[in-house]
Amino acid sequence: MIHLYTDSSPNGFKITIALEELGLPYTLHHVRLDAGEHRQPDFLRLHPHGRIPVLVDEDSDITLFESAAILLYLAEKTGNLLPTEPRARWQAMQWLLFHAASVGPLMGQRVHFEIFSRTRNAEAMERYRRLTNEAFATLDQHLSRHHFLAGDAYSIADIAHFGWTHIARIVDFDFSQYPHLSAWHERVAARPAVRLGVTLPAPATGA
Amino acid sequence: MIHLYTDSSPNGFKITIALEELGLPYTLHHVRLDAGEHRQPDFLRLHPHGRIPVLVDEDSDITLFESAAILLYLAEKTGNLLPTEPRARWQAMQWLLFHAASVGPLMGQRVHFEIFSRTRNAEAMERYRRLTNEAFATLDQHLSRHHFLAGDAYSIADIAHFGWTHIARIVDFDFSQYPHLSAWHERVAARPAVRLGVTLPAPATGA
Ligand SMILES: N[C@@H](CCC(=O)N[C@@H](CS)C(=O)NCC(=O)O)C(=O)O
Ligand SMILES: N[C@@H](CCC(=O)N[C@@H](CS)C(=O)NCC(=O)O)C(=O)O
Repeated sequence: MIHLYTDSSPNGFKITIALEELGLPYTLHHVRLDAGEHRQPDFLRLHPHGRIPVLVDEDSDITLFESAAILLYLAEKTGNLLPTEPRARWQAMQWLLFHAASVGPLMGQRVHFEIFSRTRNAEAMERYRRLTNEAFATLDQHLSRHHFLAGDAYSIADIAHFGWTHIARIVDFDFSQYPHLSAWHERVAARPAVRLGVTLPAPATGA
Repeated sequence: MIHLYTDSSPNGFKITIALEELGLPYTLHHVRLDAGEHRQPDFLRLHPHGRIPVLVDEDSDITLFESAAILLYLAEKTGNLLPTEPRARWQAMQWLLFHAASVGPLMGQRVHFEIFSRTRNAEAMERYRRLTNEAFATLDQHLSRHHFLAGDAYSIADIAHFGWTHIARIVDFDFSQYPHLSAWHERVAARPAVRLGVTLPAPATGA
């Protein structure tokens, strides 16, 4: 049995979406970040850095944190959502990592300074708006020539980016000026597994 | 033939170190960030987001950006620097991704606000000092029980983290209060391939 420890958040939705796409049975454990449950000793034994998501696969005796590592693990376990032809496979890896290292963390900083911090730190807000818009522009250009990030086939790279574009919409980060990125977002959002995944363990409110 | 496009920087050194560890022949192309060479059309054809490093492998006809994706590619190509036993392999993946998504980007923000920005933005400096120190503490705790990040064997997870701890030392981010992390850093720094890798294409100055 697979256990997923998660909350309603961009990195968490990546994994509920992937599990729903793959049709894998799993037990959902709601770790309430706003109640500080991720800082409790029981949870820190699963993830010493105290973050969600965490996946525990009892079949393989593997416990894993970091959403991009979990996505790769699930793709390899099932032979799905990651192309096998080498060039397409490394395209998927590259855009998965582009999300994990170059987009997601900057979106996180933008959310912090625009939504959560009350200080209205103009320099930081401007910096992260600019850097995330640069990333949107790069994605838009790439998606003007490809249906999905790794080419023709939907993959874990799309799921990773979608986790954050979904939240971007909820917190009113505008990417409507990037038409190819916006069209890709709608394409992914319409998938039944995605529509279900973003409600687990509960829909995000942006608060 | 492998071509590496890089500059003297944390994400670049990860790849020169890995190539030196693996003993792979490669051609080094020095992309001078301070001269804006990464914003030129020729380079943007390799990396639409205009960052280093980029690897081009003529044998497989694969062009790849994102340092963690390149590390994985080189490990898979050679069957080296990544354990094959599943549990150890996923430990390596997890700590590689922990670097790529949860440490490296925050180190980058700390460098920006402490070293490059002239505004002395106290809130941002405090935020990124705190978050990188939390990451150092998590790594220190893990390394108190393991010789290397994935366990007994040195892997691409160590190389990824070292790229940034090397720069942390140069720009005087103090992690001496984390004894296990510091001892691991010395252990990695002493390796001949690492000593060579951090001089290519030129040693970092921190400026
Ligand atoms: N790079 C990590 C980020 C994990 C992360 O920061 N998760 C957030 C929720 S999206 C969290 O647990 N935040 C709680 C906190 O920072 O205290 C991943 O992709 O899994
Ligand atoms: N997540 C990327 C980061 C790449 C990156 O930001 N590289 C820096 C040098 S370490 C760069 O090219 N900076 C130039 C710029 O931002 O304009 C990776 O790991 O490859």
